[in-house]
Amino acid sequence: MDLFGMLYLDELSHGLANLSMFPYFDMAHYIVSVMALREQPGVLDVSRVSPLACWFSSMLYCFGGAVLSGIMLAEPPVAPLSNGTSVLLASTIWYLVFYCPMDVVYSCAALLPLRLVLSGMKEVTRTWKVLGGVTQARSKYKDSLLVMIAIGWARGAGGGLISNFEQLVRGVWKPETNELLKMSYPTKVTLMGAVLFALQQTHYLPLQKHHLMLFYTIFIVVNKSRMMLTGSSSSPFSPIESALYKTLFTGHSPYAALTGEVQKAGRETGISNRTACRATTKESKENGSSGQKDSSPVEGAESSLKAKEESEAEDSKKTI
Amino acid sequence: MDLFGMLYLDELSHGLANLSMFPYFDMAHYIVSVMALREQPGVLDVSRVSPLACWFSSMLYCFGGAVLSGIMLAEPPVAPLSNGTSVLLASTIWYLVFYCPMDVVYSCAALLPLRLVLSGMKEVTRTWKVLGGVTQARSKYKDSLLVMIAIGWARGAGGGLISNFEQLVRGVWKPETNELLKMSYPTKVTLMGAVLFALQQTHYLPLQKHHLMLFYTIFIVVNKSRMMLTGSSSSPFSPIESALYKTLFTGHSPYAALTGEVQKAGRETGISNRTACRATTKESKENGSSGQKDSSPVEGAESSLKAKEESEAEDSKKTI
Amino acid sequence: MDLFGMLYLDELSHGLANLSMFPYFDMAHYIVSVMALREQPGVLDVSRVSPLACWFSSMLYCFGGAVLSGIMLAEPPVAPLSNGTSVLLASTIWYLVFYCPMDVVYSCAALLPLRLVLSGMKEVTRTWKVLGGVTQARSKYKDSLLVMIAIGWARGAGGGLISNFEQLVRGVWKPETNELLKMSYPTKVTLMGAVLFALQQTHYLPLQKHHLMLFYTIFIVVNKSRMMLTGSSSSPFSPIESALYKTLFTGHSPYAALTGEVQKAGRETGISNRTACRATTKESKENGSSGQKDSSPVEGAESSLKAKEESEAEDSKKTI
Repeated sequence: MDLFGMLYLDELSHGLANLSMFPYFDMAHYIVSVMALREQPGVLDVSRVSPLACWFSSMLYCFGGAVLSGIMLAEPPVAPLSNGTSVLLASTIWYLVFYCPMDVVYSCAALLPLRLVLSGMKEVTRTWKVLGGVTQARSKYKDSLLVMIAIGWARGAGGGLISNFEQLVRGVWKPETNELLKMSYPTKVTLMGAVLFALQQTHYLPLQKHHLMLFYTIFIVVNKSRMMLTGSSSSPFSPIESALYKTLFTGHSPYAALTGEVQKAGRETGISNRTACRATTKESKENGSSGQKDSSPVEGAESSLKAKEESEAEDSKKTI
Repeated sequence: MDLFGMLYLDELSHGLANLSMFPYFDMAHYIVSVMALREQPGVLDVSRVSPLACWFSSMLYCFGGAVLSGIMLAEPPVAPLSNGTSVLLASTIWYLVFYCPMDVVYSCAALLPLRLVLSGMKEVTRTWKVLGGVTQARSKYKDSLLVMIAIGWARGAGGGLISNFEQLVRGVWKPETNELLKMSYPTKVTLMGAVLFALQQTHYLPLQKHHLMLFYTIFIVVNKSRMMLTGSSSSPFSPIESALYKTLFTGHSPYAALTGEVQKAGRETGISNRTACRATTKESKENGSSGQKDSSPVEGAESSLKAKEESEAEDSKKTI
Repeated sequence: MDLFGMLYLDELSHGLANLSMFPYFDMAHYIVSVMALREQPGVLDVSRVSPLACWFSSMLYCFGGAVLSGIMLAEPPVAPLSNGTSVLLASTIWYLVFYCPMDVVYSCAALLPLRLVLSGMKEVTRTWKVLGGVTQARSKYKDSLLVMIAIGWARGAGGGLISNFEQLVRGVWKPETNELLKMSYPTKVTLMGAVLFALQQTHYLPLQKHHLMLFYTIFIVVNKSRMMLTGSSSSPFSPIESALYKTLFTGHSPYAALTGEVQKAGRETGISNRTACRATTKESKENGSSGQKDSSPVEGAESSLKAKEESEAEDSKKTI
């Protein structure tokens, strides 16, 4: 790349780094988040029965990352409420999306071109949130890479990571699913971002902050747009994940061998998984449903990793 | 009102404001709370099987507000335990209510006249707790009205707000109900109090603190007594709530229209609630019960707001 | 005991008190903890489907006590992550136990002699963790015995106490069981240790710290070994517990009388447990499963205390 290109890129990245998220990008984040909530099954009923629960759920969608990272760093989880302007903005958007006369706001925002722009803008806020989390963690734990990654991830993908508890607010409880068991695309891309920014902050990654911000932002915006436009189901991480998985977690110890060993070991120590499983099954037959809680992740497990990856892009559309 | 009346009122409110909650009012709060726990289905069995779980549940009933507001402000949730005298008092009451020889204590306290007095005294502690929460929040977040309301509410109605997790201690899990989805009378009146005290503290409400304390205390005590004596099901907020609800949440966008829009929008963006719902139903058929978790709040939703309000007074008696 | 014996004991206890837990004892703790996780039903499937959820679960098994005591004292629950070396060690062990080629590591560690040594070493770390918790609590709450006991207990038996949420990470949800409802042997022995160390720290127990450390360590190691070797189901606390239970919780008020009183009281105040129970049963018939959540702890309750105690030793083997 010639000098001009480099200068231009540098200028662009500086411009991006100085961009203020408030109010336009934050607004886009709130709109897309509240719309994602509204598209969850059963939410419209909740919004009719209990506007307060619906509002609280929306706030968890909008500020979940700040709440989660606050809890993890022992900072007040009510802190987001203290920023009156943001809460007012998010609440207004919540009201308009759910209760606007003739449903004008939701209908307009759901039109593909507008939704595309809004989703793109929301992705931009992700960079800021991840970086904010990493910086916040660094101010408390100087050189701990893991803490930085954890807080950056929590800040950027908080809404997804606490989804079990957000659903509980709405009276929904799905213990068999969570973002750790089956990561969606946004959670994955945020984790990657948290790793990159943590490496950059600890100088393991020889890249300047604003350059990384530019590259990461372009990557997530382009990728999100591509996924929305093509409805493509191919996650950009699939090949890497698949290779990593095969190398690390199945390569040498095929599952059949593993199970065999367990049973052998179980016989030796008097603890048998087989017995435990059988007991569970018996229970599930007796009371008709408790077993499902135990077995559901297992059932899901039967599908191959490939299928899992293919279905993720679809999920990511729902959770935005 | 003449000068004498004003002076008298002022004196009374000063007297009330200087009233110490410890030990008599606190004791009434503990007795009524532990009795409310004891009247939950299944608790007597838990008290026999695991006194420790029963004790922990009782402590959450008695100190739930302090625990919840502590978590929300990132202050140690074990703090209530550090006040040895209060814990000892509450534990003694827990023991007497559950395990007293011949069940004398519970039988006596459950007599209507005594219960009326105890419930009235418990309501008085609510004023102090709400005010305590608002003041505590104000010391951390100077001008944030929302944080003050949230903490005041949490402190005053903590036991109800964390009921899902309190039940979990006893092995009971009812995700389909929580105080946000279906607020009971105590939760509502505490929220109102938190709003009033937060407005007073930020000088938006031109009223002196001790006057507001007097008015609010009289209101909640009188109202509680009325509800207990008449068994009346009419919440004093019903008309206001109903009007507010109709104006804000149904006025312009009837539900039918809303649903229609969603489906239209769903078709456009490829995300259909209808499909999502159908998928859930299918799941629920397959494993026999998971669907119930999703659908239960919806089923409740079918009942009209009026019916909901009517049943609240009954609930409030149970949760005190 | 003669002077020589006393000197020798003193020397031994000083030696023990100066023992460093890192790396060997910590390592034993991680191995035994991760193996205990691996022996839970369904975990091998989770380890195949989502190594991340499996890793997170393992970390909760290894550092659950630190996380829980952190939350209780409003200190960052991510703090354990900041100790890079420990996390790296625990992660390596997690990887080897779950994914080692030919499953060598698990097979070897599961051999009784090795497992006995490892379990013994793990028990030694319990002393340090309980004492650490008590000391940490004391630095914040000078003279509060209850806080010291709570934090010491949480630090020493954290993995068990948060097991409901650890299971949630793996997609398993068993609300009807928790360590408060049905304490396992490790939880009990840790509670006893927390009480002893809290009493020692507040000088109610006239014993020097290093002596208590020695006695407690010997007690838990010997007891654990005995239970593993003999497969004995007799908890050393059974007689005391049984006596305490009979004196305090059933002695004067037999359950039948209790129930009768409740119904009488219920009739008087208009709140009848019988009605509440019937309502629950009706609900459970209607939706086929929700009732099970309410009734399961009750069903368990029907078994006598004796039976409960007998089955505990078996449980303790599973949860280590």
